Amino acid sequence: MARDRRTFLKLSALAGGALALPGSTFASAQQAHPSRPAARTARMKLTFRPYTLELKHVFTIAVSSRTTTPVVLTEIAYGGLVGYGEASMPPYLGETQETAAAFLSKVDLSRYPDPLQLETILADIDALAPGNQAAKAAVDIALHDLAGKLMNRPWYDIWGFDKSHTPYTSFTIGIDTPDVVRQKVREAAEYKILKVKLGRDNDKEMIETIRSVTDKPITADANQGWTDKQKALDMIHWLKDRNVLFVEQPMPKDVVDDMAWVTERSPLPTIADEFCQRLPDVRRAYGVFSGINIKLMKSTGMREAHKMLLVARSLGMKVMLGCMTETSCAISAASHLSPMIDWADLDGAVLIKNDIFAGTTIVDGRIKLSDKPGIGVTKTTLSRT
Amino acid sequence: MARDRRTFLKLSALAGGALALPGSTFASAQQAHPSRPAARTARMKLTFRPYTLELKHVFTIAVSSRTTTPVVLTEIAYGGLVGYGEASMPPYLGETQETAAAFLSKVDLSRYPDPLQLETILADIDALAPGNQAAKAAVDIALHDLAGKLMNRPWYDIWGFDKSHTPYTSFTIGIDTPDVVRQKVREAAEYKILKVKLGRDNDKEMIETIRSVTDKPITADANQGWTDKQKALDMIHWLKDRNVLFVEQPMPKDVVDDMAWVTERSPLPTIADEFCQRLPDVRRAYGVFSGINIKLMKSTGMREAHKMLLVARSLGMKVMLGCMTETSCAISAASHLSPMIDWADLDGAVLIKNDIFAGTTIVDGRIKLSDKPGIGVTKTTLSRT
Repeated sequence: MARDRRTFLKLSALAGGALALPGSTFASAQQAHPSRPAARTARMKLTFRPYTLELKHVFTIAVSSRTTTPVVLTEIAYGGLVGYGEASMPPYLGETQETAAAFLSKVDLSRYPDPLQLETILADIDALAPGNQAAKAAVDIALHDLAGKLMNRPWYDIWGFDKSHTPYTSFTIGIDTPDVVRQKVREAAEYKILKVKLGRDNDKEMIETIRSVTDKPITADANQGWTDKQKALDMIHWLKDRNVLFVEQPMPKDVVDDMAWVTERSPLPTIADEFCQRLPDVRRAYGVFSGINIKLMKSTGMREAHKMLLVARSLGMKVMLGCMTETSCAISAASHLSPMIDWADLDGAVLIKNDIFAGTTIVDGRIKLSDKPGIGVTKTTLSRT
Repeated sequence: MARDRRTFLKLSALAGGALALPGSTFASAQQAHPSRPAARTARMKLTFRPYTLELKHVFTIAVSSRTTTPVVLTEIAYGGLVGYGEASMPPYLGETQETAAAFLSKVDLSRYPDPLQLETILADIDALAPGNQAAKAAVDIALHDLAGKLMNRPWYDIWGFDKSHTPYTSFTIGIDTPDVVRQKVREAAEYKILKVKLGRDNDKEMIETIRSVTDKPITADANQGWTDKQKALDMIHWLKDRNVLFVEQPMPKDVVDDMAWVTERSPLPTIADEFCQRLPDVRRAYGVFSGINIKLMKSTGMREAHKMLLVARSLGMKVMLGCMTETSCAISAASHLSPMIDWADLDGAVLIKNDIFAGTTIVDGRIKLSDKPGIGVTKTTLSRT
């Protein structure tokens, strides 16, 4: 935590009064859930602090390796209630704790009389600056948590979804040596579906290594790694013969015509990830990919993610729900959409050593939603240290 | 009411035990709004009865004239709460009180443990039989009213909309003699926008008659009345020069290519009404019309209407919210979407003499939402007679 504290002090100067001291505002947050705030004059107050997630394993994808992930944790206090949020910022996506703090310091929630006016509030926040999707998601998630607590219902209830319809989640096996890959596959015994990061020169070796120890279904994420359309299509055929369910982002995100060519011929569904960030991208992805991967840190949070889900469904597209490395805060937030999706990849909190929230869990490989209101999380004892 | 009672007795035999006697179950409905039902073993119970709306004026559109509109009123009782719903069935749409009773008698809500599982329950009900959109809406609206009461919030809150953003509604001037049209326009002094039914041989006369007494903006509904694309386009140009805002359904609903041709060249937005009934029709209307007219009696109710709104918005289409002749029950239900639309045509309850609900009102021509939970309605004293 020493490093977090130093980063925090730097951010404090940057963000001014909007930053709370870790352990002060955060630790004293009330947990009671009255259905209405005591005072009609209550005003929302946003606070935030940096936190560094420590990964259980070195994590390698097509473009980078790392052992930590920086996040920013948010809280919105209102009338005795507190909503929790989170921004996760893997380094390759362009946001940092500093950019998030700079953005969040511009957010003034005190001027909104009613926290339930999500459409208006979140449209205003979106208009503060372009980009900053993770920072925006950190506000959106905390606001949803607060709104759900005000309504005294979890979001799957508010959205009208059946919590018994949650899917299994895949578990990600990072790129590594065959021995380590085999070891990771054995450790993932609880999971019914494995996700593999491809897009480098050892793709077939990765799949064959996994197939040497298990015949579980695999989902493949090429992370834009294949640049030739015929080779991409050939690879997809090869993957289909090895019980792979679908392929995420086979080609670079700016490749459209070749990608549509691949999708038209592909024996497996193709899923847009880097190509599909926000709501307008769903329409762009229609006819180019078979489906989309919705992640809160791309979509600016739960509200736009919910819209993306409904739009993709109405266009007949497949829907996958993904995540970054995140605590159970952002994972739980995303999981309320999971009763309505085809495939889930919500293992982000399982991959870290220092989760400070408890909420949605994975039981025998399947997503299990909490009954608590809002996004359904509580802070763990680790959060007090 | 004598006629309603006779119709009811006929329906009773048709629908069996699911029908309630008017004035029995309905009059004894509890009005308390606890946030959770007293008993965990509560089961939903659907009842319904016919009712005949009496119109203030003879109502003429391109294809018919009438002085009454048959509706079916629904109630869903659960744990001391009651949700109200309504099916409105103008004769030209194919549903009747008898078909609605036959459909509703197939609906068994007692098997669902949780009224908030709207997605699952409404998908099951939709699958009971094709068509029957108004009957399905009657269940959907009552279920939304109940769910909102369980959450103790009005639906604009649950959907995250700002009730201060409601639009003005248009007021419909039916086809009639010039003297009567001028009289109706004067009676509509409260309304800022007039809606005119066109699509017959006196279209220009109608507009000129209105323009002889007011320069208020007009919206035009051709009700499929124009069959030639060039004549339709010429008429739209003529209308634009007379401060008409948009044109609904200029051509027959099965005309697609010619309609797209008109939209591409039209100086006014074209709005799909008969062409666009349910969610999949939004995608079909994209590129053919500029926008869609959402009506609960076409969409099967509030849930699909909300999805249609979000999908149309994401496709960059205009959204209008319309109605049939309805009580303030169905009008109030629809009105919760109104903070997010471009144009409203929610005058249905104003056109009848025997409304039995109070909820959303029209104040100085503008939609005013009730603060009450659910769809926000109460029964009026007229409902006890």
